[in-house]
Amino acid sequence: MADWTLPNEVTIWEVLPRDGFQMESDWIPTEEKIRIIRHLAQTGIKHIEATSFVHPRAIPQLKDAESVIKGVQDLNNITFRALVPNLKGAERAIDAGVRKLKLLLSSTDSHSLNNSNSTVKEAQEKLLPIVDFATTKNVEVSGSLTVAFGCPYEGEVPVDKIIPLIERYNEMGIKEVSLADTTGMGNPIQVYEVLGKLRKTFPDSMFTLHLHNTRGMAFANALAGLSQGVTSFDSSTAGLGGCPYAPNAAGNIATEDLVHGFHEMNIQTGIDVDKLVDAASGVAKTFGHDGGSFVLKAGQNKDLHVKPKRQKKMG
Amino acid sequence: MADWTLPNEVTIWEVLPRDGFQMESDWIPTEEKIRIIRHLAQTGIKHIEATSFVHPRAIPQLKDAESVIKGVQDLNNITFRALVPNLKGAERAIDAGVRKLKLLLSSTDSHSLNNSNSTVKEAQEKLLPIVDFATTKNVEVSGSLTVAFGCPYEGEVPVDKIIPLIERYNEMGIKEVSLADTTGMGNPIQVYEVLGKLRKTFPDSMFTLHLHNTRGMAFANALAGLSQGVTSFDSSTAGLGGCPYAPNAAGNIATEDLVHGFHEMNIQTGIDVDKLVDAASGVAKTFGHDGGSFVLKAGQNKDLHVKPKRQKKMG
Repeated sequence: MADWTLPNEVTIWEVLPRDGFQMESDWIPTEEKIRIIRHLAQTGIKHIEATSFVHPRAIPQLKDAESVIKGVQDLNNITFRALVPNLKGAERAIDAGVRKLKLLLSSTDSHSLNNSNSTVKEAQEKLLPIVDFATTKNVEVSGSLTVAFGCPYEGEVPVDKIIPLIERYNEMGIKEVSLADTTGMGNPIQVYEVLGKLRKTFPDSMFTLHLHNTRGMAFANALAGLSQGVTSFDSSTAGLGGCPYAPNAAGNIATEDLVHGFHEMNIQTGIDVDKLVDAASGVAKTFGHDGGSFVLKAGQNKDLHVKPKRQKKMG
Repeated sequence: MADWTLPNEVTIWEVLPRDGFQMESDWIPTEEKIRIIRHLAQTGIKHIEATSFVHPRAIPQLKDAESVIKGVQDLNNITFRALVPNLKGAERAIDAGVRKLKLLLSSTDSHSLNNSNSTVKEAQEKLLPIVDFATTKNVEVSGSLTVAFGCPYEGEVPVDKIIPLIERYNEMGIKEVSLADTTGMGNPIQVYEVLGKLRKTFPDSMFTLHLHNTRGMAFANALAGLSQGVTSFDSSTAGLGGCPYAPNAAGNIATEDLVHGFHEMNIQTGIDVDKLVDAASGVAKTFGHDGGSFVLKAGQNKDLHVKPKRQKKMG
């Protein structure tokens, strides 16, 4: 390619409080969740997926969704969204004061059956009542497609399977969709081609990339997205999150890695990397592990060593 | 960018036996080194950096360089090269039967002083006698530039600092240069711009990218190199290798991650990923750790799970 023009500025959606927390097996006290979200809000992060209003039996870790939202609702400079798997969740979220919902839809029947015991078509039918309800409450709704680039049961997901799903979101008035590479199977050429086709087919839609670093390609996939004009990315501080299909593998792309890399490329995020690394370091300490953060281990590029002097030859 | 044309085929230079082994503190018996190289040679890998003829006091782990070369010299289908830091090393390597040398040069004075107690200019002056000697012996010589994209002492390395170094290599008749992101400070836009400028300035030169995943950008940097027509990559099986500046950080990009990702992008390497993963897994077991391999932890994309069936609702 002759030139490589990338956006100057992007939006980071911090998903640690949902994607990260839900993968932790030990109970995280509500006040700890609130403390971490408040810490993240001090780094310059302006968009946070705060929790999921899922049935407490499905994900006990997030059973305190209402209390978490209550504990951060004074942070007026942050746009919060919450994941809602069904109408009941949407009702709970809106009751709790959430002003932006994210819907959940799998891209393949296999993954959908595994996650919600319904085909994609059946799951789609349950979305409209949520949208209708949110509309009456004047609450914003965004969409998501999990396993959008590859499915752990079905392999590569062709873009022709994705297009009708975005089309349906469009028909419901949903213009913002997070495309999730849930198990890190996407490669940058695929991401480039899929996003190219989607942006051409749906010029009014806003696509977010939700990348996992399962096979080491998350940053390259972000680059491919940027190359198609994508300006919105989901990421998780300390890289926490991941998927049950590869329990020891790397999780979500770490916010500090994404932001550090973007800043090196002169792409602005509005986030202070020093403060973010500080928050990430605290999170990794709190949970006793990270999910595959590079900057936490290696430091930032700017963390230089003291220049060596010439050694005198001995003897 | 409108189109994204990448090469269909690339060459992988396996550097585990040099870059990886030299970072291991426990002694690796010579026969073990030979066994691993022979195993790698069965995966379809055709280019191996087998060892370094460095002073035994500097890197005791590689003091058996002659014996290692002797133990693999019957592998006629493999092109071997050895790193030589000085004339003495070159003499030893050629005596041992090595037919391709790789020279070592830092891109910055600070790194050069730290590694060889000489400035870049002083180090350069020591290269010509090696080239002259190799030429009389009809042995091929390639070059390398370490910290070519970022220096842990000096920060970003501007391309204007690199150009005269390639120029000097050119004057000495060396057309093949491995550009090393030794401490993983490069970002893909930088790699794209630097390679673009270098390929334009030195159209007859052959550049190899030697990438470390220290800050999670190695695969993206490979993608940037591919986008500039780079078709040669150094990588280390199991990701072993790394740098003393960030001891716990990820090492060289893992050969299995690079090859798996390239194959997903329809870029051929001639390597059998199953056999390579098997070799990588053995290497990680032998040394009790890997250097940040993703495919070893997560499996390949093709390793699918059994499709779920619909669950009957319980009454």
